[in-house]
Amino acid sequence: MKPSHIEHLGIAVTSIDAAAPFFEFLSGEPCYKKEVVEDQKVITAFFKVGETKIELLEPTCPESTIAKFIEKNNGRGGLHHVAFNVENVAEALAECEAKGIQLIDKAPRKGADNLMIAFLHPKSTCGVLTELCEQPK
Amino acid sequence: MKPSHIEHLGIAVTSIDAAAPFFEFLSGEPCYKKEVVEDQKVITAFFKVGETKIELLEPTCPESTIAKFIEKNNGRGGLHHVAFNVENVAEALAECEAKGIQLIDKAPRKGADNLMIAFLHPKSTCGVLTELCEQPK
Repeated sequence: MKPSHIEHLGIAVTSIDAAAPFFEFLSGEPCYKKEVVEDQKVITAFFKVGETKIELLEPTCPESTIAKFIEKNNGRGGLHHVAFNVENVAEALAECEAKGIQLIDKAPRKGADNLMIAFLHPKSTCGVLTELCEQPK
Repeated sequence: MKPSHIEHLGIAVTSIDAAAPFFEFLSGEPCYKKEVVEDQKVITAFFKVGETKIELLEPTCPESTIAKFIEKNNGRGGLHHVAFNVENVAEALAECEAKGIQLIDKAPRKGADNLMIAFLHPKSTCGVLTELCEQPK
């Protein structure tokens, strides 16, 4: 595998409205996009730092995996996942599978910001929830 | 503040030797540097993905903050901190302080890979342990 760059960092927050001012200050830029991702039961907000996006993730319901992450983390947000930009997610998944890496997604699916995405299981990735992303063609 | 890029991601691991093969596969490149940081009681190993480094952190003793992080995390490693590259850490710290952000380091200090660094407190950064870095001149 040879990712071109870290596409984004996923950060769980209890409230995007409360978190946004800090990330605007930290990145030096206003949020450039907000998006509801129904599939993942989250509202997302994006900030840019160099070639990497900061993706804030606020749960829309208690069943959201982000809500569960926050619950486990004593009600606080924090670093949730790291996403690597690859040319082709399906090919990268096949490479991972051949390496014996446990997959969460067996096939690419549509994620936020028009990307095709797939997650690897943290059991196989030293505890780091790892996402593979492919830019829209 | 206007960081140029995400300088590195700090990832706590129980063993660099055990973790390195996965990060070599994930980044598509061999580890380019290992370094003991006495001050932080860690061994570090570096991998490159685009403009960002992945910094693995293995504790050298139980008093290391990384050892405590792993202990709290049920004996497993995981995402530990995010480091933003700024032109001048001292100036960025002053900006943070003026914004009311709680600092861990009141002044820049020497970190791994010859950087000048300072940490912001996760209480003020939405639970994300945040480092500011300045490249050596």
